[in-house]
Amino acid sequence: MFAQPIPTLRRDGDSLVILDQTLLPFRSETRRLRTLAEVANAIRSMQVRGAPLIGATAAGGVAVALASDGADDAVLDGALAALAATRPTAVNLHWALARMERVLRPLPALARPAAAWTEAEAIIADDAATCDAIGRHGLGLFEALAGTRPLPAGRPLRVMTHCNAGWLATCGAGTALAPVYAAQARGMAVEVIVSETRPRNQGLLTAWELREAGVAHTLIADNAAGLLLARGEVDAVITGADRVAANGDAANKVGTYLKALAAREAGVPVYIAAPYSTLDFGCADGAAIPIEDRGADEVCLVRGNDAGDSIAELRLAPDGTRVANPAFDVTPARLIAAIITERGVTAPAELARLYPEHAR
Amino acid sequence: MFAQPIPTLRRDGDSLVILDQTLLPFRSETRRLRTLAEVANAIRSMQVRGAPLIGATAAGGVAVALASDGADDAVLDGALAALAATRPTAVNLHWALARMERVLRPLPALARPAAAWTEAEAIIADDAATCDAIGRHGLGLFEALAGTRPLPAGRPLRVMTHCNAGWLATCGAGTALAPVYAAQARGMAVEVIVSETRPRNQGLLTAWELREAGVAHTLIADNAAGLLLARGEVDAVITGADRVAANGDAANKVGTYLKALAAREAGVPVYIAAPYSTLDFGCADGAAIPIEDRGADEVCLVRGNDAGDSIAELRLAPDGTRVANPAFDVTPARLIAAIITERGVTAPAELARLYPEHAR
Repeated sequence: MFAQPIPTLRRDGDSLVILDQTLLPFRSETRRLRTLAEVANAIRSMQVRGAPLIGATAAGGVAVALASDGADDAVLDGALAALAATRPTAVNLHWALARMERVLRPLPALARPAAAWTEAEAIIADDAATCDAIGRHGLGLFEALAGTRPLPAGRPLRVMTHCNAGWLATCGAGTALAPVYAAQARGMAVEVIVSETRPRNQGLLTAWELREAGVAHTLIADNAAGLLLARGEVDAVITGADRVAANGDAANKVGTYLKALAAREAGVPVYIAAPYSTLDFGCADGAAIPIEDRGADEVCLVRGNDAGDSIAELRLAPDGTRVANPAFDVTPARLIAAIITERGVTAPAELARLYPEHAR
Repeated sequence: MFAQPIPTLRRDGDSLVILDQTLLPFRSETRRLRTLAEVANAIRSMQVRGAPLIGATAAGGVAVALASDGADDAVLDGALAALAATRPTAVNLHWALARMERVLRPLPALARPAAAWTEAEAIIADDAATCDAIGRHGLGLFEALAGTRPLPAGRPLRVMTHCNAGWLATCGAGTALAPVYAAQARGMAVEVIVSETRPRNQGLLTAWELREAGVAHTLIADNAAGLLLARGEVDAVITGADRVAANGDAANKVGTYLKALAAREAGVPVYIAAPYSTLDFGCADGAAIPIEDRGADEVCLVRGNDAGDSIAELRLAPDGTRVANPAFDVTPARLIAAIITERGVTAPAELARLYPEHAR
């Protein structure tokens, strides 16, 4: 069982305590969320981020709301609606809210607050177990890959990732990085190529958590991914996902699609690591996945450490610059070698076989 | 004839005056270069950048050296060697130095300084004329494209570019942006999709010069290029190049290759705009083009405007983070619809036909 160095999300009484990811990698601070509004804001402003963690936080947000605002239907409905509206692309959010509603709706109001905390904590624990299972299945893929390439003696398996799908994005070991941590635990040499992931620079979160864990890694500008793949310097691309459609098309952080195209050109496999809560069997294909547009400031402002080691912001482009800032893109199933879930490894087209309860 | 709003490079007596591009888009300042060391540093540190401008600046640097240090063979050899060593990928640098040497070597030392300035100024003037010709030929492509797509009434032609290949990168109208300015002069509606171009953010230079020129443009994170192309929101991709091999493979700013892959997938043509000085018929294909690796700080530090409108720097990743920072990648000829030179428009494989003097 992977133990998070700092819990990304935990219950404390009737509030949630989160690791504020908008301050990372510059400062590691927790934040207490006492109200529904604070939880919704934490998701919207990306104090918590990563599809699995967004879902778990939303579940906790329902519990926070019922504990602080009363637990009648109006409060429950309001909490579900407010949390559902925070981010559009990650389907884990809706999955978690539906799971909470299924448990809470039939209960009398008096019984709801305690049940909400029980269910939210179960979602957190389930997510950690799911990450461990993804790690085990992904490690099998890594071992097979290292055997078939085969790697020269002493050369680590080089895995490129995008955005952050490590422990920071979940309640456990992560999704895309879970196999990396599993490999490390097994003593297998892995190096992670970390793309910066503009505009929000979540690659810096990945570099931070890999550094904390002592895993070798190399940071690159997103633009460098094509050259490194073309040169044969990458053995596999592995990312998480924010929503996987029934046909295996996967929405993930914008830029994933470009890496997948370059990987295909280089004959390098692309793996998507995603728990059940990320799968959307109600969504036929990628074209049906809503893509979140975020504000211009994410592109025009940048946050970093100033000379005095304080967090500061700089403006890159003038106010009023027209910006397009889609937060996700869709990698078509045909570019994906395998999807790794807590149930195993599958070709994208066979995804439903792992989940017969969703067979139509 | 396109007139640069601010000359990127001009002779003033025995010195060069450049627009310092490391301060753009935040501040527009010129800088006087009086010595060979100052010119070499200006190229290396990217105070001047863009393949054609690098070449012209190097030519001027030879003149500066001969004027200030004497003009015997030792000084000439030293200047040529020092300037050739500043940047490895842009072949224009070597082309310009070879052109200077061809003129200067046969002359007695006394005649060299004046001849050097004459030749350097001719290279500057030639580059401006070359840009205008590229603009005319590229405009023909744009007009054909607007006719064949065809565009709904009122919808501008949407052209995606990468890095900066506008007037800032040349002594004239630019290479990739020359057709944009030609279209604007003709009254044709064009919108430019400008990718940020990490790690050096030259897309901000492109946004700045388009804003100065009143051309509609939208800034995006490099990662967003794939989604916009897949959604049909781009009609053409056009970039400059730092070196084009004999077979039509083109080295350009890192990230160009990723856009070219996504463009092919979307059925969108990729155009490379490059003057003669960028063509390297001595280089068989892209694999023979040297790719410059630059320092980690370009990825780990970022420069912008602080709240007081001063230029400041922030650290994104901690000191000691391992970084790979290749500055260029190679787009294979098979992904390029046409190369636009001052002589016309050609399929990459037919490049040599435009230059029969290089036919083997």
